[in-house]
Amino acid sequence: MTGPSLDVIGVGNAIVDVLAKADDAFLKAHDIPKGGMILIDEDRAKSIYSGMAAAVEVSGGSAANSIACIASLGGNGGFIGKVADDALGDIFRHDLRAMGVEFDTMPLIDGPETGRCLINVTADAQRSMSTFLGAAGYVAPDDIDEEQIKRAAITFCEGYLFEQPNAREGFIAACAIANANGNRTALTLSDASVVERQQDVLRNFIKDHVHILLANDVEAAALFGSEDLGVISEKARALSPLTAMTRSEHGSILIPRDGDIVEVPAIKPAALEDTTGAGDAYAAGLLFGLARGFDLTRAGTLGSLAASEVISHFGARPSQSLLSLAENHKLL
Amino acid sequence: MTGPSLDVIGVGNAIVDVLAKADDAFLKAHDIPKGGMILIDEDRAKSIYSGMAAAVEVSGGSAANSIACIASLGGNGGFIGKVADDALGDIFRHDLRAMGVEFDTMPLIDGPETGRCLINVTADAQRSMSTFLGAAGYVAPDDIDEEQIKRAAITFCEGYLFEQPNAREGFIAACAIANANGNRTALTLSDASVVERQQDVLRNFIKDHVHILLANDVEAAALFGSEDLGVISEKARALSPLTAMTRSEHGSILIPRDGDIVEVPAIKPAALEDTTGAGDAYAAGLLFGLARGFDLTRAGTLGSLAASEVISHFGARPSQSLLSLAENHKLL
Repeated sequence: MTGPSLDVIGVGNAIVDVLAKADDAFLKAHDIPKGGMILIDEDRAKSIYSGMAAAVEVSGGSAANSIACIASLGGNGGFIGKVADDALGDIFRHDLRAMGVEFDTMPLIDGPETGRCLINVTADAQRSMSTFLGAAGYVAPDDIDEEQIKRAAITFCEGYLFEQPNAREGFIAACAIANANGNRTALTLSDASVVERQQDVLRNFIKDHVHILLANDVEAAALFGSEDLGVISEKARALSPLTAMTRSEHGSILIPRDGDIVEVPAIKPAALEDTTGAGDAYAAGLLFGLARGFDLTRAGTLGSLAASEVISHFGARPSQSLLSLAENHKLL
Repeated sequence: MTGPSLDVIGVGNAIVDVLAKADDAFLKAHDIPKGGMILIDEDRAKSIYSGMAAAVEVSGGSAANSIACIASLGGNGGFIGKVADDALGDIFRHDLRAMGVEFDTMPLIDGPETGRCLINVTADAQRSMSTFLGAAGYVAPDDIDEEQIKRAAITFCEGYLFEQPNAREGFIAACAIANANGNRTALTLSDASVVERQQDVLRNFIKDHVHILLANDVEAAALFGSEDLGVISEKARALSPLTAMTRSEHGSILIPRDGDIVEVPAIKPAALEDTTGAGDAYAAGLLFGLARGFDLTRAGTLGSLAASEVISHFGARPSQSLLSLAENHKLL
């Protein structure tokens, strides 16, 4: 076993975010569902980008954002994901490593460019994402570093990649290693449409492999077929040892299989600027807390705090030290 | 003559900014002069970048930033500068065009990559820039579009490029066209070390070609050999029809050859976050105002207003409509 132990290792999309302000008419004109995520091909990416406002580029990817937040909380994080051998790939790699995150996945050679997520942020702070996966979709079982997974308290998979067959095989390989070594695994559902398309496969994957399931209320309703908390909690307990359901400004609900439901309030942000990355930041706080053995309330509150920081500014990664913030809140 | 008339066309660096937070120890360790700009080669760029914190990428370049601000003020801007045919070049082109700026310079083929400026911002909001020019240094007389220069009320050259012989020839070609057509020309000195190294050549260029000279107080002291306003104004009047000297939080001083000195106060920003682009934004307001025939006070105040917006957030280009801001201030 080489390297220090890790709190969380993420397996997910290695992509760069392209963030710009937009209005509802733009979303409509380009057929972009507000608040959602759609996968697009390179031609459509060019077409949408050419109509977008002047933008800011910043490393993104859902699980990668979470790992960046975990590093900002003072945790040890690792990431597995696929970039190309190009300028955007260099940027993605730099930004994770600069935060102290282990990221050693070999770049894709002779394939598509590094993926990017075109994020249009409307005045109501909602983000609508159009993702050209590019190289990111090529992450595969060969990229899973067994020694690295063994060192991680939690292996965290990103649902956005669940529909890429090679990536899904990668998730299964990673979770199998984690489980065989007595470590925990987590999955974020990422998007309700992924849930709807993958119902049965997803349910089986969770049942067989996942200890900690993360979902927002829309994704949870899609998976459990109900918005009723009684129904959701019963089905969630049957499916996985712990389910965390986020509900935007209403905070989150933690449903352990063997214990009482815990409600965690949201923390109001200094300003509400851009909700991009809110779920990723929440996952970071929760998973970091669980990796460190905190109780559900404390771990969930760390999630609320990380989310409140990330939505207070443009972009999905923290702009200040989450560790300092958590210390100020007496959470760390 | 094709296309609409332009308020200002800029000739300058086509580069992407890589912005990150840093401390003084980092600047010292990498021998980066605080608050200044140094030119670096690709190897040193890699070395500095590898030590930098997680960053944000955003289109930059001094004159290009000014033109972006002019577009945000509701003006018509054009830009001439050299990117490579790569991802960062696409980003640079997109961001200018998305603001309505004409940017048609052909990309460099088979040369270095698109340039980048590594900007380390310290807690005191000072920015220290390390620039790998890359393709940007290859702008040349062939890139100067005669018809486009003819359409511009003001042709604006960026001093950072004055030491690139081909770019300097480009400036001369552009200014000659502007002058021959009765249009005005402007130059920003950009950096005191450029001034020190290029004293005589620079002075001759200004005398022969430039109507509006822009400098901060340090650059003005370097060019005129004095910090005394009496000496500066006498020498400035001998050199060019109008000199604008910025003095950070003390505002700016406008020195017309045939008129009284005008003092313009600074406008306090909502918050002081990052001074990157302050001078570029000031130049934008001033030049836009002069292109539209405003008096010196009104044009200079537009400059102060644009600068106050740009330093209130991370990054050198406006994050809100400068036109709306100027309307609120009854300047437009």
